Amino acid sequence: MPFQEKIVLNPIGYVKTKAEGDEVKDESTVSQIVIRDELVEGLSGITGFSHLFVLFYLNQVTSEQRKTLKVHPRGRQNMPLTGVFAARTMLRPNPIGLTLVELVKVEGNVLTVRGLDAYDATPVLDLKPYDFWDMAENAKVPDWWKKLNSGKPQKLL
Amino acid sequence: MPFQEKIVLNPIGYVKTKAEGDEVKDESTVSQIVIRDELVEGLSGITGFSHLFVLFYLNQVTSEQRKTLKVHPRGRQNMPLTGVFAARTMLRPNPIGLTLVELVKVEGNVLTVRGLDAYDATPVLDLKPYDFWDMAENAKVPDWWKKLNSGKPQKLL
Repeated sequence: MPFQEKIVLNPIGYVKTKAEGDEVKDESTVSQIVIRDELVEGLSGITGFSHLFVLFYLNQVTSEQRKTLKVHPRGRQNMPLTGVFAARTMLRPNPIGLTLVELVKVEGNVLTVRGLDAYDATPVLDLKPYDFWDMAENAKVPDWWKKLNSGKPQKLL
Repeated sequence: MPFQEKIVLNPIGYVKTKAEGDEVKDESTVSQIVIRDELVEGLSGITGFSHLFVLFYLNQVTSEQRKTLKVHPRGRQNMPLTGVFAARTMLRPNPIGLTLVELVKVEGNVLTVRGLDAYDATPVLDLKPYDFWDMAENAKVPDWWKKLNSGKPQKLL
Protein backbone atom coordinates (compact mmCIF):
# COMPACT_ATOMS: atom_id res chain seq x y z
CA MET A 1 0.00 0.00 0.00
CA PRO A 2 1.81 3.19 -1.15
CA PHE A 3 -0.31 5.46 1.11
CA GLN A 4 2.53 6.78 3.25
CA GLU A 5 4.65 8.09 0.40
CA LYS A 6 5.33 11.81 0.47
CA ILE A 7 5.59 13.53 -2.86
CA VAL A 8 7.72 16.63 -3.23
CA LEU A 9 7.23 19.01 -6.14
CA ASN A 10 8.85 22.28 -7.12
CA PRO A 11 6.93 24.98 -8.98
CA ILE A 12 7.88 25.41 -12.65
CA GLY A 13 6.78 29.04 -12.45
CA TYR A 14 4.09 31.31 -11.09
CA VAL A 15 1.02 33.29 -12.07
CA LYS A 16 1.14 37.03 -12.64
CA THR A 17 -2.19 38.80 -12.74
CA LYS A 18 -3.75 42.12 -11.83
CA ALA A 19 -7.10 40.40 -11.19
CA GLU A 20 -8.06 40.30 -7.51
CA GLY A 21 -10.70 38.41 -5.55
CA ASP A 22 -13.59 37.17 -7.67
CA GLU A 23 -12.15 38.86 -10.77
CA VAL A 24 -9.94 35.79 -11.30
CA LYS A 25 -13.08 33.71 -11.86
CA ASP A 26 -14.07 35.77 -14.88
CA GLU A 27 -13.29 33.55 -17.84
CA SER A 28 -12.22 36.53 -19.93
CA THR A 29 -9.43 37.36 -17.45
CA VAL A 30 -6.00 37.50 -19.09
CA SER A 31 -3.02 36.43 -16.94
CA GLN A 32 0.63 35.68 -17.38
CA ILE A 33 2.46 32.53 -16.44
CA VAL A 34 6.15 33.15 -15.78
CA ILE A 35 8.25 30.02 -16.26
CA ARG A 36 11.63 29.46 -14.58
CA ASP A 37 14.35 30.55 -16.98
CA GLU A 38 16.05 27.15 -16.99
CA LEU A 39 12.82 25.45 -18.18
CA VAL A 40 12.10 27.68 -21.17
CA GLU A 41 13.16 24.99 -23.65
CA GLY A 42 10.20 22.94 -22.38
CA LEU A 43 7.86 25.46 -24.04
CA SER A 44 9.16 24.65 -27.52
CA GLY A 45 6.26 24.02 -29.91
CA ILE A 46 3.58 24.98 -27.40
CA THR A 47 2.07 27.61 -29.69
CA GLY A 48 0.94 24.77 -31.99
CA PHE A 49 -1.84 24.23 -29.46
CA SER A 50 -4.67 26.72 -28.92
CA HIS A 51 -5.51 25.55 -25.39
CA LEU A 52 -3.59 24.29 -22.37
CA PHE A 53 -4.32 22.73 -19.03
CA VAL A 54 -2.64 24.62 -16.22
CA LEU A 55 -1.98 22.69 -13.01
CA PHE A 56 -1.30 24.98 -10.10
CA TYR A 57 -0.90 24.77 -6.35
CA LEU A 58 -3.59 26.47 -4.30
CA ASN A 59 -1.15 27.75 -1.69
CA GLN A 60 -3.75 29.77 0.19
CA VAL A 61 -5.50 26.58 1.35
CA THR A 62 -4.57 25.82 4.97
CA SER A 63 -3.71 22.37 6.31
CA GLU A 64 -6.97 22.50 8.29
CA GLN A 65 -8.96 23.26 5.10
CA ARG A 66 -7.29 20.29 3.38
CA LYS A 67 -9.27 18.05 5.72
CA THR A 68 -12.59 19.18 4.21
CA LEU A 69 -14.48 16.23 2.70
CA LYS A 70 -17.83 17.77 1.73
CA VAL A 71 -18.85 21.18 0.45
CA HIS A 72 -21.86 23.01 -0.91
CA PRO A 73 -20.72 23.62 -4.52
CA ARG A 74 -19.50 27.20 -4.90
CA GLY A 75 -20.55 27.82 -1.27
CA ARG A 76 -24.24 27.94 -2.18
CA GLN A 77 -26.36 26.60 0.66
CA ASN A 78 -29.09 25.58 -1.79
CA MET A 79 -26.73 23.16 -3.49
CA PRO A 80 -26.44 19.61 -2.07
CA LEU A 81 -23.57 18.73 0.26
CA THR A 82 -21.14 17.09 -2.13
CA GLY A 83 -17.85 15.21 -1.73
CA VAL A 84 -14.78 17.26 -2.59
CA PHE A 85 -13.85 14.71 -5.30
CA ALA A 86 -17.24 15.38 -6.91
CA ALA A 87 -16.64 19.14 -6.89
CA ARG A 88 -14.04 21.58 -8.17
CA THR A 89 -13.67 23.33 -4.81
CA MET A 90 -10.17 24.37 -3.80
CA LEU A 91 -10.76 22.71 -0.43
CA ARG A 92 -9.35 19.22 -1.04
CA PRO A 93 -6.64 16.95 0.40
CA ASN A 94 -4.15 17.89 -2.33
CA PRO A 95 -5.09 21.44 -3.33
CA ILE A 96 -4.13 21.28 -6.98
CA GLY A 97 -6.04 23.52 -9.37
CA LEU A 98 -6.73 22.36 -12.92
CA THR A 99 -7.97 24.88 -15.46
CA LEU A 100 -8.33 24.82 -19.22
CA VAL A 101 -7.05 28.09 -20.67
CA GLU A 102 -6.66 29.65 -24.07
CA LEU A 103 -3.06 30.31 -25.05
CA VAL A 104 -2.83 33.88 -26.31
CA LYS A 105 0.94 34.20 -26.85
CA VAL A 106 4.38 33.19 -25.65
CA GLU A 107 7.27 35.64 -25.27
CA GLY A 108 10.46 34.12 -23.87
CA ASN A 109 9.56 32.60 -20.51
CA VAL A 110 6.18 34.35 -20.26
CA LEU A 111 2.92 32.83 -21.48
CA THR A 112 -0.17 34.98 -21.79
CA VAL A 113 -3.38 32.99 -21.24
CA ARG A 114 -7.10 33.68 -21.05
CA GLY A 115 -9.37 32.08 -18.43
CA LEU A 116 -6.97 31.15 -15.64
CA ASP A 117 -8.78 31.37 -12.29
CA ALA A 118 -5.64 31.64 -10.15
CA TYR A 119 -4.46 34.49 -7.96
CA ASP A 120 -1.29 36.50 -8.43
CA ALA A 121 1.87 34.61 -7.35
CA THR A 122 0.18 31.18 -7.41
CA PRO A 123 2.84 28.48 -7.97
CA VAL A 124 2.39 26.63 -11.27
CA LEU A 125 3.12 22.88 -11.28
CA ASP A 126 2.70 21.85 -14.89
CA LEU A 127 1.39 22.83 -18.32
CA LYS A 128 -0.17 20.25 -20.60
CA PRO A 129 -1.37 20.77 -24.16
CA TYR A 130 -5.09 20.20 -24.61
CA ASP A 131 -5.96 17.63 -27.23
CA PHE A 132 -8.93 15.59 -28.35
CA TRP A 133 -8.33 12.81 -25.80
CA ASP A 134 -9.40 15.37 -23.19
CA MET A 135 -12.89 15.57 -24.64
CA ALA A 136 -15.57 13.21 -23.41
CA GLU A 137 -18.42 12.40 -25.70
CA ASN A 138 -21.84 12.29 -24.05
CA ALA A 139 -20.51 13.53 -20.71
CA LYS A 140 -23.12 13.63 -17.96
CA VAL A 141 -23.21 16.01 -15.01
CA PRO A 142 -25.64 16.11 -12.07
CA ASP A 143 -28.69 18.36 -12.00
CA TRP A 144 -27.14 20.64 -9.35
CA TRP A 145 -24.29 21.37 -11.76
CA LYS A 146 -26.73 22.44 -14.49
CA LYS A 147 -28.61 24.70 -12.05
CA LEU A 148 -25.37 26.23 -10.78
CA ASN A 149 -24.27 27.07 -14.32
CA SER A 150 -27.64 27.93 -15.84
CA GLY A 151 -26.88 31.65 -16.15
CA LYS A 152 -23.57 31.11 -17.92
CA PRO A 153 -22.69 30.45 -21.53
CA GLN A 154 -23.11 26.73 -21.84
CA LYS A 155 -20.33 25.84 -24.28
CA LEU A 156 -21.20 22.35 -25.45
CA LEU A 157 -24.04 21.81 -22.96
CA MET B 1 9.34 35.06 -6.66
CA PRO B 2 7.86 31.87 -5.19
CA PHE B 3 10.24 29.60 -7.13
CA GLN B 4 12.00 28.03 -4.16
CA GLU B 5 8.85 26.79 -2.45
CA LYS B 6 8.66 23.04 -1.96
CA ILE B 7 5.23 21.49 -2.18
CA VAL B 8 4.47 18.31 -0.26
CA LEU B 9 1.54 16.12 -1.21
CA ASN B 10 0.21 12.82 0.12
CA PRO B 11 -1.54 10.34 -2.15
CA ILE B 12 -5.30 10.04 -1.67
CA GLY B 13 -5.13 6.45 -2.90
CA TYR B 14 -3.57 4.27 -5.54
CA VAL B 15 -4.27 2.46 -8.81
CA LYS B 16 -5.01 -1.24 -8.94
CA THR B 17 -4.80 -2.86 -12.37
CA LYS B 18 -3.85 -6.15 -13.97
CA ALA B 19 -2.72 -4.33 -17.13
CA GLU B 20 1.04 -4.37 -17.64
CA GLY B 21 3.39 -2.46 -19.93
CA ASP B 22 1.68 -0.98 -22.97
CA GLU B 23 -1.64 -2.56 -22.00
CA VAL B 24 -2.29 0.43 -19.72
CA LYS B 25 -2.38 2.68 -22.78
CA ASP B 26 -5.35 0.81 -24.25
CA GLU B 27 -8.27 3.16 -23.70
CA SER B 28 -10.61 0.23 -23.04
CA THR B 29 -8.52 -0.85 -20.01
CA VAL B 30 -10.55 -1.07 -16.83
CA SER B 31 -8.74 -0.24 -13.56
CA GLN B 32 -9.60 0.38 -9.95
CA ILE B 33 -8.73 3.38 -7.86
CA VAL B 34 -8.55 2.56 -4.16
CA ILE B 35 -9.13 5.61 -1.98
CA ARG B 36 -7.83 5.94 1.60
CA ASP B 37 -10.61 4.85 3.96
CA GLU B 38 -10.66 8.14 5.82
CA LEU B 39 -11.37 10.07 2.58
CA VAL B 40 -14.36 8.03 1.37
CA GLU B 41 -16.82 10.79 2.29
CA GLY B 42 -15.12 12.90 -0.39
CA LEU B 43 -16.61 10.58 -3.04
CA SER B 44 -20.16 11.52 -2.10
CA GLY B 45 -22.15 12.39 -5.22
CA ILE B 46 -19.39 11.44 -7.65
CA THR B 47 -21.60 8.98 -9.55
CA GLY B 48 -23.60 11.97 -10.78
CA PHE B 49 -20.74 12.52 -13.23
CA SER B 50 -19.98 10.15 -16.10
CA HIS B 51 -16.33 11.17 -16.45
CA LEU B 52 -13.50 12.20 -14.12
CA PHE B 53 -10.04 13.61 -14.37
CA VAL B 54 -7.54 11.49 -12.49
CA LEU B 55 -4.35 13.23 -11.34
CA PHE B 56 -1.65 10.76 -10.45
CA TYR B 57 2.02 10.76 -9.59
CA LEU B 58 4.32 9.09 -12.13
CA ASN B 59 6.55 7.56 -9.45
CA GLN B 60 8.63 5.56 -11.92
CA VAL B 61 10.13 8.78 -13.36
CA THR B 62 13.64 9.30 -11.96
CA SER B 63 15.04 12.64 -10.78
CA GLU B 64 17.37 12.54 -13.79
CA GLN B 65 14.42 12.04 -16.18
CA ARG B 66 12.65 15.01 -14.57
CA LYS B 67 15.32 17.23 -16.13
CA THR B 68 14.17 16.32 -19.65
CA LEU B 69 13.03 19.43 -21.55
CA LYS B 70 12.40 18.10 -25.07
CA VAL B 71 11.09 14.81 -26.42
CA HIS B 72 10.02 13.20 -29.65
CA PRO B 73 6.28 12.71 -29.00
CA ARG B 74 5.61 9.10 -28.00
CA GLY B 75 9.29 8.35 -28.65
CA ARG B 76 8.83 8.45 -32.44
CA GLN B 77 11.95 9.73 -34.12
CA ASN B 78 9.91 11.00 -37.07
CA MET B 79 8.05 13.40 -34.79
CA PRO B 80 9.58 16.85 -34.16
CA LEU B 81 11.59 17.48 -30.98
CA THR B 82 9.00 19.13 -28.78
CA GLY B 83 9.09 20.82 -25.38
CA VAL B 84 7.77 18.69 -22.54
CA PHE B 85 5.09 21.33 -21.79
CA ALA B 86 3.86 20.90 -25.39
CA ALA B 87 3.65 17.11 -24.98
CA ARG B 88 1.94 14.65 -22.67
CA THR B 89 5.15 12.70 -22.01
CA MET B 90 5.68 11.45 -18.47
CA LEU B 91 9.17 12.97 -18.58
CA ARG B 92 8.56 16.41 -17.08
CA PRO B 93 9.78 18.48 -14.10
CA ASN B 94 6.74 17.57 -12.00
CA PRO B 95 5.69 14.13 -13.23
CA ILE B 96 1.95 14.42 -12.70
CA GLY B 97 -0.29 12.39 -14.99
CA LEU B 98 -3.67 13.77 -16.02
CA THR B 99 -6.15 11.44 -17.70
CA LEU B 100 -9.83 11.71 -18.49
CA VAL B 101 -11.58 8.46 -17.55
CA GLU B 102 -15.07 7.07 -17.67
CA LEU B 103 -16.50 6.31 -14.23
CA VAL B 104 -17.94 2.78 -14.33
CA LYS B 105 -18.95 2.31 -10.69
CA VAL B 106 -18.12 3.11 -7.08
CA GLU B 107 -18.21 0.52 -4.30
CA GLY B 108 -17.13 1.80 -0.89
CA ASN B 109 -13.63 3.20 -1.32
CA VAL B 110 -13.04 1.59 -4.73
CA LEU B 111 -13.79 3.31 -8.02
CA THR B 112 -13.84 1.32 -11.24
CA VAL B 113 -12.81 3.43 -14.24
CA ARG B 114 -12.19 2.91 -17.96
CA GLY B 115 -9.27 4.47 -19.81
CA LEU B 116 -6.74 5.16 -17.05
CA ASP B 117 -3.21 4.84 -18.46
CA ALA B 118 -1.48 4.31 -15.11
CA TYR B 119 0.42 1.29 -13.82
CA ASP B 120 -0.51 -0.82 -10.84
CA ALA B 121 0.24 0.87 -7.48
CA THR B 122 0.55 4.36 -9.00
CA PRO B 123 -0.19 6.97 -6.28
CA VAL B 124 -3.33 9.01 -7.01
CA LEU B 125 -3.23 12.71 -6.10
CA ASP B 126 -6.73 13.94 -6.89
CA LEU B 127 -10.01 13.21 -8.64
CA LYS B 128 -11.98 15.97 -10.32
CA PRO B 129 -15.39 15.69 -11.94
CA TYR B 130 -15.36 16.45 -15.67
CA ASP B 131 -17.74 19.20 -16.70
CA PHE B 132 -18.40 21.41 -19.68
CA TRP B 133 -15.83 24.03 -18.65
CA ASP B 134 -13.23 21.37 -19.53
CA MET B 135 -14.25 21.42 -23.17
CA ALA B 136 -12.61 23.83 -25.56
CA GLU B 137 -14.51 24.88 -28.62
CA ASN B 138 -12.44 25.06 -31.80
CA ALA B 139 -9.34 23.60 -30.15
CA LYS B 140 -6.29 23.48 -32.44
CA VAL B 141 -3.48 20.95 -32.29
CA PRO B 142 -0.26 20.82 -34.36
CA ASP B 143 0.06 18.70 -37.49
CA TRP B 144 2.39 16.23 -35.74
CA TRP B 145 -0.38 15.49 -33.25
CA LYS B 146 -2.82 14.67 -36.05
CA LYS B 147 -0.29 12.38 -37.74
CA LEU B 148 0.51 10.64 -34.46
CA ASN B 149 -3.17 9.93 -33.83
CA SER B 150 -4.32 9.30 -37.37
CA GLY B 151 -4.91 5.58 -36.83
CA LYS B 152 -7.04 6.07 -33.71
CA PRO B 153 -10.69 6.87 -33.21
CA GLN B 154 -10.79 10.62 -33.48
CA LYS B 155 -13.50 11.51 -30.99
CA LEU B 156 -14.42 15.09 -31.81
CA LEU B 157 -11.61 15.61 -34.32
